[in-house]
Amino acid sequence: MNRRIVFYRVGQIMMLEAVLLILPLAVSLIYGEMKAVTSFAITIGAAAGLGLLLILPIRHYDNVMFSKEGFTIVTLAWILLSLVGALPFFFSGEIPDYADAVFETVSGFTTTGASLIPDVESLSKGILFWRSFTHWIGGMGILVLMMAIIPTDSGRSMHIMRAEMPGPVVGKLVPKIKDTAKILYLIYFGLTIAETLLLLIGGMPLYDSIVHALGTAGTGGYGIKGDSIGGYAPHLQWIIAGFMVIFGINFNLYYLLLLRKWKPVIKNTELWVFGGLIIITTAVIAIDIFPLYGNAEESIRNSFFQVTSIMSTTGYSTADFNLWPSLSKGLIFILLFIGGCAGSTAGGLKISRIMIMFKSVCNDIRQQRHPRSVVKVKIDGKVVDNTTLHRVSTYFILYIILIVSVFLLISFEPFGFETNLTAAVSCINNVGPGLGDVGPAGNYSGYSTFSTIILSCAMLLGRLEIFPIILAINPKNWVNKNK
Amino acid sequence: MNRRIVFYRVGQIMMLEAVLLILPLAVSLIYGEMKAVTSFAITIGAAAGLGLLLILPIRHYDNVMFSKEGFTIVTLAWILLSLVGALPFFFSGEIPDYADAVFETVSGFTTTGASLIPDVESLSKGILFWRSFTHWIGGMGILVLMMAIIPTDSGRSMHIMRAEMPGPVVGKLVPKIKDTAKILYLIYFGLTIAETLLLLIGGMPLYDSIVHALGTAGTGGYGIKGDSIGGYAPHLQWIIAGFMVIFGINFNLYYLLLLRKWKPVIKNTELWVFGGLIIITTAVIAIDIFPLYGNAEESIRNSFFQVTSIMSTTGYSTADFNLWPSLSKGLIFILLFIGGCAGSTAGGLKISRIMIMFKSVCNDIRQQRHPRSVVKVKIDGKVVDNTTLHRVSTYFILYIILIVSVFLLISFEPFGFETNLTAAVSCINNVGPGLGDVGPAGNYSGYSTFSTIILSCAMLLGRLEIFPIILAINPKNWVNKNK
Repeated sequence: MNRRIVFYRVGQIMMLEAVLLILPLAVSLIYGEMKAVTSFAITIGAAAGLGLLLILPIRHYDNVMFSKEGFTIVTLAWILLSLVGALPFFFSGEIPDYADAVFETVSGFTTTGASLIPDVESLSKGILFWRSFTHWIGGMGILVLMMAIIPTDSGRSMHIMRAEMPGPVVGKLVPKIKDTAKILYLIYFGLTIAETLLLLIGGMPLYDSIVHALGTAGTGGYGIKGDSIGGYAPHLQWIIAGFMVIFGINFNLYYLLLLRKWKPVIKNTELWVFGGLIIITTAVIAIDIFPLYGNAEESIRNSFFQVTSIMSTTGYSTADFNLWPSLSKGLIFILLFIGGCAGSTAGGLKISRIMIMFKSVCNDIRQQRHPRSVVKVKIDGKVVDNTTLHRVSTYFILYIILIVSVFLLISFEPFGFETNLTAAVSCINNVGPGLGDVGPAGNYSGYSTFSTIILSCAMLLGRLEIFPIILAINPKNWVNKNK
Repeated sequence: MNRRIVFYRVGQIMMLEAVLLILPLAVSLIYGEMKAVTSFAITIGAAAGLGLLLILPIRHYDNVMFSKEGFTIVTLAWILLSLVGALPFFFSGEIPDYADAVFETVSGFTTTGASLIPDVESLSKGILFWRSFTHWIGGMGILVLMMAIIPTDSGRSMHIMRAEMPGPVVGKLVPKIKDTAKILYLIYFGLTIAETLLLLIGGMPLYDSIVHALGTAGTGGYGIKGDSIGGYAPHLQWIIAGFMVIFGINFNLYYLLLLRKWKPVIKNTELWVFGGLIIITTAVIAIDIFPLYGNAEESIRNSFFQVTSIMSTTGYSTADFNLWPSLSKGLIFILLFIGGCAGSTAGGLKISRIMIMFKSVCNDIRQQRHPRSVVKVKIDGKVVDNTTLHRVSTYFILYIILIVSVFLLISFEPFGFETNLTAAVSCINNVGPGLGDVGPAGNYSGYSTFSTIILSCAMLLGRLEIFPIILAINPKNWVNKNK
């Protein structure tokens, strides 16, 4: 492995984190929260120091990079990012336990939004801003951000992008990876600004608007109120729900829209399936919960908000679905697995992966009936090659193994079956809330340090889609220096 | 499709069911239960009549059979078998609702053992015998039984065997399919007799011994007491637990033992994995539940009994694991999916399928690290071909789709999440008990007729491993008479 480029790139990420931390420091300054200011300042020093420590010893490096290096850079970067990003919570004393702070930060960067802070309203504005800002940084990927802004770049960066971007296939929008990263971040930034403005116009205070836009854009879900979005006016809930849908859609489609290419957008099957699933489940749940609210608007709004929140893996809430009838809870449970479209900031299995698996199974059944026929799996008229097909089913098996393992490891906890199972599923899919004690009205504070660490790993494995981490932590990866 | 052979074979199965029904009729006669005698007699008439109706119009038939015909015969046979087998319960009035009677019969034949009879001790001896006998008939497969005893047979019957026998690959023990079927049934019969004798020697009454041996052999789990096996002496519980392990092992191994071929038995990886999983989970659960019993023998016995019962998908119980700590409940939940070895009477995913998936995933990870290397998946030193690999992962995806669908369909029921989810999982894996209201101390009587039908279909789909039924119910299968 080319260790130099690995350390160099990870060092760059640390420097970038130091720069990004200036923003929450500024927020703390504005609100005069001096303890938070100090902790951000120390963390900036630590991040920059660590970055320099990694970069300075490397005088020159080979720009040769294979998938191995890509995996390792992404894994190391995400781990260090979280360990350093947790420091402000810890230093400020707002999360007194470092393992808890790491959980909260991993949950932020992976855009899970699972929190173990019992009373979120007691936190300082700067810390709350950093908490939501981690969603925004992790949503599109910090390495993608680095690729967009750091001048030296080679075609090899595709390996990094592939490891960090979720979904079965990563498409380049334009020939240059750097330009693709730039376009993605411009769209991301533009949509975030749009949401902030709409919320502001709708009457939400500036600070709240920014924080919620960051949380929605990354499909994270960290809020600043005890009842998440429930306390805001209905029209603000509708705006946030709409943007949860928007951020659950493949960003490539927005690029196509910018180029005024309507046809491929309208013909995008994943978009239709995503939209169809939202409409159907919203309708079913709205009817199911109608007796609880006795009012069509409220039933539809609560149903739509929760469905889009879970499907986009954001995790904001306006109602406690723990109290809903069993059909609605069952649907919510299934939605925890599905997730948004590939190429969005959403987590979960991804619609396109489910489509590929479903079509592949249908094909196999057809094949068994007519053994001599050869039918290919097609998505949007394009044949899905066998490597992708195989990788999708392998990923699915690994994903189920991961859920089973995490569930078993946290089963030591004295919570019920429902809580432990949905906690594992929700963390791996980067959703946030589950059912039972980790439902919208609860939080993860009851879990022991051991489970906190397990769930942190689960969130990282879910965000990076398992493979990169497994490949990176393999000891063989580290033995041969120049191989 | 060659309809004639389909109807002919299904007709033969009906005749065979009529013959098999003589046994419970005799039991009812012995105990002087005249109402049950009458209902068995009417059912025998119905089965024989239906059989003749199917067979008589066919003067001659082509013995040409492809997988299509195999699938269709097995699916039709199992459906009719259950619909007719439910009649004694219904006619005798012991299960007053026909849909409930069908559920109980499907649960019997599929060796699930999920019951909706609230008070099993109130049933007549003859009816209880028939209930447990269905386990024995379904365990090894009624079509395999037919192949073993009906004289005319051709090599084409492999297609039937493949559709009815669970597991990723069906091996022929000897060149002739008919002889393979005979050997399997002789071993099955011998082991059942052995268990009956051991239970008798242990002091269990004759009737109880036979009924429990039938239930264990088929890995079904229908008992005759309200507390299942809990009320019997500890040494009897150990005997039954031991036989649950025995019937969860691939029968091919017993044949090899009869031939004194020790080596392939000792080197059988599936056996080691099965044994290893039983030992590890028994140990973990025994430690976890020790505080509840405060006694090593009782903790180990209860742990071992429940673990072997769930892993072999039998479903007998000596303790209510609903009351166990969350780690034990979590492990039980995972075991619900796993099942026994391929080629046994157990249900579930099967150890060999899990091994193939696990090895395939490990291979893929290795392949991603060394893209140019080609490593094959091997089980017991033999390469698993790509078709099998592919079919295993397809099966797994279908299996998860089935669990999700069944769970959602029964989510209309006002039970909790835990109950509905484990009911779906337990029925599909042909285990029987789940957690919550369908736990060892509960039953399925609370479910509505709609859910009863859904769960009956789920058990059939699980027992026949999905593919045959999907292929058989496809309308295209029925359109072309001679294709």
